[in-house]
Amino acid sequence: MTANGTTNGSASHNPHAPKYQDSLSRVTNWSVIESTLREGEQFANAFFDTETKIKIAQALDDFGVEYIELTSPAASEQSRSDCEAICRLGLKAKILTHTRCHMDDARIAVETGVDGLDIVIGTSSYLREFSHGKDMDYIAKQATEVINFIKSKGLEVRFSSEDSFRSDLVDLLSIYRTVDKLGVNRVGIADTVGCANPRQVYELVRTLRSVVSCDIECHFHNDTGCAIANAYAALEAGATHIDTSVLGIGERNGITPLGGLCARMYVADKDYVIGKYKLDKLRDLENLVAEAVQIQVPFNNYITGYCAFTHKAGIHAKAILNNPSTYEILKPEDFGMTRYVSIGHRLTGWNAVKNRVQQLGLKLSDDEVKAVTAQIKVMADVKPLNIDEVDTLLRRFHDKVDGGIAPATPADAN
Amino acid sequence: MTANGTTNGSASHNPHAPKYQDSLSRVTNWSVIESTLREGEQFANAFFDTETKIKIAQALDDFGVEYIELTSPAASEQSRSDCEAICRLGLKAKILTHTRCHMDDARIAVETGVDGLDIVIGTSSYLREFSHGKDMDYIAKQATEVINFIKSKGLEVRFSSEDSFRSDLVDLLSIYRTVDKLGVNRVGIADTVGCANPRQVYELVRTLRSVVSCDIECHFHNDTGCAIANAYAALEAGATHIDTSVLGIGERNGITPLGGLCARMYVADKDYVIGKYKLDKLRDLENLVAEAVQIQVPFNNYITGYCAFTHKAGIHAKAILNNPSTYEILKPEDFGMTRYVSIGHRLTGWNAVKNRVQQLGLKLSDDEVKAVTAQIKVMADVKPLNIDEVDTLLRRFHDKVDGGIAPATPADAN
Repeated sequence: MTANGTTNGSASHNPHAPKYQDSLSRVTNWSVIESTLREGEQFANAFFDTETKIKIAQALDDFGVEYIELTSPAASEQSRSDCEAICRLGLKAKILTHTRCHMDDARIAVETGVDGLDIVIGTSSYLREFSHGKDMDYIAKQATEVINFIKSKGLEVRFSSEDSFRSDLVDLLSIYRTVDKLGVNRVGIADTVGCANPRQVYELVRTLRSVVSCDIECHFHNDTGCAIANAYAALEAGATHIDTSVLGIGERNGITPLGGLCARMYVADKDYVIGKYKLDKLRDLENLVAEAVQIQVPFNNYITGYCAFTHKAGIHAKAILNNPSTYEILKPEDFGMTRYVSIGHRLTGWNAVKNRVQQLGLKLSDDEVKAVTAQIKVMADVKPLNIDEVDTLLRRFHDKVDGGIAPATPADAN
Repeated sequence: MTANGTTNGSASHNPHAPKYQDSLSRVTNWSVIESTLREGEQFANAFFDTETKIKIAQALDDFGVEYIELTSPAASEQSRSDCEAICRLGLKAKILTHTRCHMDDARIAVETGVDGLDIVIGTSSYLREFSHGKDMDYIAKQATEVINFIKSKGLEVRFSSEDSFRSDLVDLLSIYRTVDKLGVNRVGIADTVGCANPRQVYELVRTLRSVVSCDIECHFHNDTGCAIANAYAALEAGATHIDTSVLGIGERNGITPLGGLCARMYVADKDYVIGKYKLDKLRDLENLVAEAVQIQVPFNNYITGYCAFTHKAGIHAKAILNNPSTYEILKPEDFGMTRYVSIGHRLTGWNAVKNRVQQLGLKLSDDEVKAVTAQIKVMADVKPLNIDEVDTLLRRFHDKVDGGIAPATPADAN
C-alpha cells in the first residue's frame, strides 16, 4: 500500500494515490457543483436574503468552484429575482438552477440568465407512487420536451433521477440512454435518501458509464455517513461532477460537504486540489455560511474543526514531531491552519515534552525530561494543565536541576 | 436496486439489504469495540474523572455495546486505578484495555481485571522510521512474547498494526499470520491517519480474511470522511469487529462514531441493530459524552442532530406525508426521535400546507390551499414563518373563505 513509481497524472509522487492506473477513474479530474444556494437552502435553518446569497456566491466563486447551483426561480418571486441578480454578477463559475422536470419551471428558469438547468424527476417506485404518480413512459416524454426546450435556448442541461438507488435499474438505464441521445450535458444520480454505500455506488456509476457518453453528476445525502465516501467511489467509477454544499447543509442532515470532499480528494491528488481551489479560504467560507444559517461549525469538522490538527497521545506526538507525515495526511499549512501538539495531560509522552523543553530553550537530559514527564502525568491525573502551566512546571524543574537538585527518574509509561 | 425475495439473515424484508447473499459479508453479524474511554480520551477536550468514566461505561453497557476499551493502565496511576474500578462494575460488556505491544505495559494491564488486551504496534515504514525504529523481525519477536504472556493469563488478546494502509502488504500479512498461529482472538487493521478509502479497505480485509482464521477488528479515523463507509466496507469483506466512540471523539477529528455506525448498519439489517442495541438511549449517551468533553452535538449529527428528521422542500414534504419511506430510511421512532415537516418558508408546497390545514381541522379546497400556499411564499420571501404564524395565517384565510371571500388561485410553483 506504499507509494511506488507508477504514473497517475500529477498524483505520481503522492504516497496515497492509487497503486495502479485505472482508465475509468476521475479522481484526478472532476468538478464541483456547489449547491449551498439550492440544497443548502433546504436546510432547516436556512433563510438567505439577497445580500447573503450574493456574498456566498462570491465567496464560492473566489474559492474556485466550477458551478454554483441556485434554488428554482419557480419557488418564489424572490428566488427568481435573486437568481437573476447572481447571474448578473459575472462570476467565473457557471450558474445553474435546479428545477423540476416540468415546462412551467423550465420556461421561468431559462429567462433568468443562468448558464444551465439541472432538471430532476423521481424515478423510484416510492416516488412514482407517493410523489408525482407518473410512469416511466410519461417521464421519458416529459423529459424529452423539457430537454429539447432548454437546448433550444442554448443552455446546459442535466437530467437527474431522484432516489436513484431505489429505482429499477433497467428503467434507470433506459431513461438515461434516452436523454443522452437527446444531447444532455450531464445525467445525474441522486442518493436522495442517503441509503447508498460505496460499493453500490461504484457498481451503478460504472454500469452507467458504459451506457451514456455524457458527463455523470452525483448527489449524495449523508443520513448514513457515506456522502463523502460515495462521492469518491463515484469518481473512481467514472463520474465527473460531485454536488456539495458548504458544511454539507441540506435536507435533513445534508449532503457531501465541500470541505470534506476537498480533504478526501487532496489525499488522491494534492496538487490537483491545491491548484484549482483556494483551500486557505475554506475556513472563511464555512464561517460565512455557518453565520448565515446560525449554526456552529461542528467540533469535528473536516480540516477546519478546532481539533483537526491537534495531536494528544504521547506516541502520536513523538512521531509527529519527528515527521508530520507519520500521523498527518493533510498538511495544515495548505489550508491556512496550524498544528497543535497537546502535552499537559495524562496521555503525554516524554518525546513531546522534550520538544517543548527545546522550544523553551531549556537544557535537560533525556532522563530529566522523563522525570518531569512523570510529574506532568501525576498532576494531569487530577486536572489537565494548559500550556502556560506546563511551561511554568518545565522552567521550575529546569531551575531546580540547574541548581543541582537532580530528580528521581521513573520509567515513562507512554 | 429494489428489494427482492433473496434471504440474507433477518434482512430478508429490508429493501436496502444487499440483493444477493455474500458469504464473506458480516454486515448482519458484527460487534462494536467501544473506545470512547480510550480513543475518546485522546480527543483534545477530553479529561474524564473516575466518576465520569464509570457513568460512561455504564451508559455504554446499558446501550448494549459488546466491548468497552479503556486507556492503557500504564499511561498514569489514575488510568490504572480507573481501569480496575470499571472492571469491578460487573458490566455485561467485556472490558478491554489498549496497550503498546510491550511487556512493561502488558504486565501492568493483566493485573487490572480486564477481560482482554488490545495490543498495537506501528508497522508502516513511516512509524518504523520515525516512531519506534524497530524492524519487522523485532516486531514479530516482541509480539510473540507479549501474546504468549497474555494468553498464559487466560485473557483475550488482539494484535493490531498501526497505520496499516501505509504498511507493506507482505510484511503485514506475514505478521498477522504469525500472530494468528499463536492463537490471538483478533487481528486489527487500523487506518491511523484516516487516509483509506472503502475500496482499499475492502481489498485489504478480504485479502486478510484469506490469511487468518481469527476475528478481524478495524479502526478507522475520519480525517477524510470515510470512517463510517470504511467500517461498512470492512464488514462486507469479512471483518467482525468495528471500533467506535460516542460522537466519534478521538485524536484529531476522531473515528467511526457509534451513532453513525448504527445508522449505517440499520439500513443493512434494521432488525439486527434494533435487537442488540437500545437505540432510543443513543441521544442520552451522546449528551452525556458531549457534556463531559464540553462540546455541542453537531447540527448535522447522525440520527440525533436536530435536523436529522426535518423535511423542508415542498416536493419532499408532500411525499413524506404520503409515505415516510419515500424520503426517510431511518424511522425516527426507532431512535426515540420525531419527524418534523417544515412549511413556513419559500420552498414550501401546497401538499404540505394541505396536511397542516387538515391537522388544524380546517376545511379548504385544493385550489384554496394552493392560494394560501402562494400567500405563505410571498410572506416567507421576506422572513420565514414559525408554525404559530403559519397556523394563524391558515385560520384567518379559512375564516375569510368561510365568510364568502374566495381568494385568487395562482399556480403553485413548487
